[in-house]
Amino acid sequence: MKGVALVADPIRKYVAEFLATFLFVFTIIGIINAGVGSVSALAIGSALMVLVYAVGHISGGHLNPAVSLAVFIRGRLSAVDLGGYVVAQLVGGALAALVSMAIWPSAAEGLNFESTSSAFLIELIFTFILCFTVLNVATSKDHPDNAFYGLAIGFAVVVGVAAGGGISGGAFNPAVALGLAVDGVFTWGSQWLYFGAALLGGALAALAFNLLNPHDREAVEV
Amino acid sequence: MKGVALVADPIRKYVAEFLATFLFVFTIIGIINAGVGSVSALAIGSALMVLVYAVGHISGGHLNPAVSLAVFIRGRLSAVDLGGYVVAQLVGGALAALVSMAIWPSAAEGLNFESTSSAFLIELIFTFILCFTVLNVATSKDHPDNAFYGLAIGFAVVVGVAAGGGISGGAFNPAVALGLAVDGVFTWGSQWLYFGAALLGGALAALAFNLLNPHDREAVEV
Amino acid sequence: MKGVALVADPIRKYVAEFLATFLFVFTIIGIINAGVGSVSALAIGSALMVLVYAVGHISGGHLNPAVSLAVFIRGRLSAVDLGGYVVAQLVGGALAALVSMAIWPSAAEGLNFESTSSAFLIELIFTFILCFTVLNVATSKDHPDNAFYGLAIGFAVVVGVAAGGGISGGAFNPAVALGLAVDGVFTWGSQWLYFGAALLGGALAALAFNLLNPHDREAVEV
Amino acid sequence: MKGVALVADPIRKYVAEFLATFLFVFTIIGIINAGVGSVSALAIGSALMVLVYAVGHISGGHLNPAVSLAVFIRGRLSAVDLGGYVVAQLVGGALAALVSMAIWPSAAEGLNFESTSSAFLIELIFTFILCFTVLNVATSKDHPDNAFYGLAIGFAVVVGVAAGGGISGGAFNPAVALGLAVDGVFTWGSQWLYFGAALLGGALAALAFNLLNPHDREAVEV
Repeated sequence: MKGVALVADPIRKYVAEFLATFLFVFTIIGIINAGVGSVSALAIGSALMVLVYAVGHISGGHLNPAVSLAVFIRGRLSAVDLGGYVVAQLVGGALAALVSMAIWPSAAEGLNFESTSSAFLIELIFTFILCFTVLNVATSKDHPDNAFYGLAIGFAVVVGVAAGGGISGGAFNPAVALGLAVDGVFTWGSQWLYFGAALLGGALAALAFNLLNPHDREAVEV
Repeated sequence: MKGVALVADPIRKYVAEFLATFLFVFTIIGIINAGVGSVSALAIGSALMVLVYAVGHISGGHLNPAVSLAVFIRGRLSAVDLGGYVVAQLVGGALAALVSMAIWPSAAEGLNFESTSSAFLIELIFTFILCFTVLNVATSKDHPDNAFYGLAIGFAVVVGVAAGGGISGGAFNPAVALGLAVDGVFTWGSQWLYFGAALLGGALAALAFNLLNPHDREAVEV
Repeated sequence: MKGVALVADPIRKYVAEFLATFLFVFTIIGIINAGVGSVSALAIGSALMVLVYAVGHISGGHLNPAVSLAVFIRGRLSAVDLGGYVVAQLVGGALAALVSMAIWPSAAEGLNFESTSSAFLIELIFTFILCFTVLNVATSKDHPDNAFYGLAIGFAVVVGVAAGGGISGGAFNPAVALGLAVDGVFTWGSQWLYFGAALLGGALAALAFNLLNPHDREAVEV
Repeated sequence: MKGVALVADPIRKYVAEFLATFLFVFTIIGIINAGVGSVSALAIGSALMVLVYAVGHISGGHLNPAVSLAVFIRGRLSAVDLGGYVVAQLVGGALAALVSMAIWPSAAEGLNFESTSSAFLIELIFTFILCFTVLNVATSKDHPDNAFYGLAIGFAVVVGVAAGGGISGGAFNPAVALGLAVDGVFTWGSQWLYFGAALLGGALAALAFNLLNPHDREAVEV
């Protein structure tokens, strides 16, 4: 949330994104293995909330290539940083899955969709909601330094997992999808869907934000 | 929460209400179909919280004709905007139900009330709580620019669905009721109850707010 | 949270306490009857959170004679207002139970404690936590106009009901205890325990607050 | 969150840590005995959130020797206070377990790990997340006087218990581990693991914070 992030060296932002995405994906795998049923959605979204509050002041707390793409299109992330963020997030997610196997065994076989088009639509719509929420609560000039950004962002994932997790697996995040493929929860053959739907959802969210906030061209830093 | 919404063209406010209500009703239908049991209340109210935080700075984040009516009676929405908001909300809710059928089949038969008078009273009281909360947290001059408005508003619905969902279906919102009728979760014959109880609840909430806040005639914008 | 409440006529504060306590107890009875199991604690505490945010700027949002007693001992409520608040809360709680019977039948027989001393201790400790939290988050000069007061207060009840509800019934509030006795959930013979433990817990919380905050004699209004 | 704590006598800070840790561990034991299943994680983390908001302005609201160690390494707690805090927390946790036995019988036999190395890793990683979150939300100069610190800190424990509680018991806090050993939930033979992993996690979190926030050497008080 603070412009201080921009003047500091970019490396600390990339490290923050790497570390937080690593911790997020590790936690998700733990929750999946804990089998806490319908409370999973709350726990997974809460993990995002906590980590967004923890590193938001350093890197903006994206933890998600779709979010970084949305922030880039909205004009609050440079192309160089977009690359740095996405690499940090994907490496963090994949590494978390590898480390998690020291505790939880890799899943036997990955999730198969009952309907691929339904899964795509679910990933698209809830990634849209997530990214649209991020842009409005963390980059709008209308409420700078607000306290609710992490709550809104984290619970966008609570909602998405509760409503759509049974259809698509509920990633809404290519870094999560990659980690869950490494872990065997998702199949490698479905990665195109998670990446494609999430990036499309993020891009559409940025267009919607720009359309609905025509006067918001600068001010608050992510 | 920001007056900036008033000086901008009204169309972006209507579009924000349409988009957010569409996403809200689509998510509710997903949650109903996910069968997450008693966690449904938390997920549905959280969806409202997230979307109120997302579009609150644009349109006030009503997503509900009963809320818009209450804000109109309280004197913070013009008659023209009341019309625009309600149309946007109802169209968004109905369209969400149609789109949702691409993923989830329409419900076989709608909900029948064990007691119509109990259902009416539940819809009335919890819509009152919701609208009374909105007026106090989002339009009172006593805490401008507070961070908790979305949390309070969203959890008013968590509470209503948990306490009364088994009696009435737990809409507290004509746009939700319409969407659930289109989807077949509610019957068309019960729409009068959802619309009537919710609008009455919203109107009473506005009267209660005006009675309890006699000195609050202007200031904070919804 | 606003001093404005003090300069206005006291009647509106009493009406706010009456209305909010009525809605709180009505909601609790709904949640009990809904049988949502372990989610009850979350729903009941969330109801308090929502209503505290809704009327906090008018009356302080006590909804509980034990809280009003604690605020009185801490020196932020006059003796006259203490009387007015407590009457409004008790009438609100009792009336809510009567109205609730139009929807839900009165409970067949009231709760019997497995151990009366355990029930007393649970009511004492969790009312202490609730009142100590209220005094620190809503009356301390250290964080005026904070946004988290309702969240902390409501979730003190979430925690108490989750940890101790099975032992004592989980009232932590004489107005709730009275309403649940009218409704038949609690026995009339146990009212002394709920009233005694809660008022003692509130008084001890005020002493603890005064001990730990020696320099906080004025400033923020409840 | 307020520097006022530093100028006041240290005794009130130690008393606040003692009292809040006592209440926290008592509540955890209640929740464990209540058997609320997967909602336990939410209730336990919420208890921390409530108490952090309650005493944060007095002592910083650590309630955990690992957190105090992290804050000490980060340079915001003196060596004398580190000692005072840790003693207060451990005594509070142990005493809570003794008092709790008046209500709930001591557990018959303590938890045995399926894998000691997995338990260590879980305690290490989630204590790291907890302490890293505390340092960033409650001691960073980037968002002084924010409202979300208790929410982020409490939900770090919600997440840890949900994801890792089944593997390690989910303490992430030596004072909790000690209390649960006194109560018989944990074995005395596993105390080295809880203390070692938590303190290592806290120390690593402080190093990570210092690395990622090179320009944050003073300002906001815990």
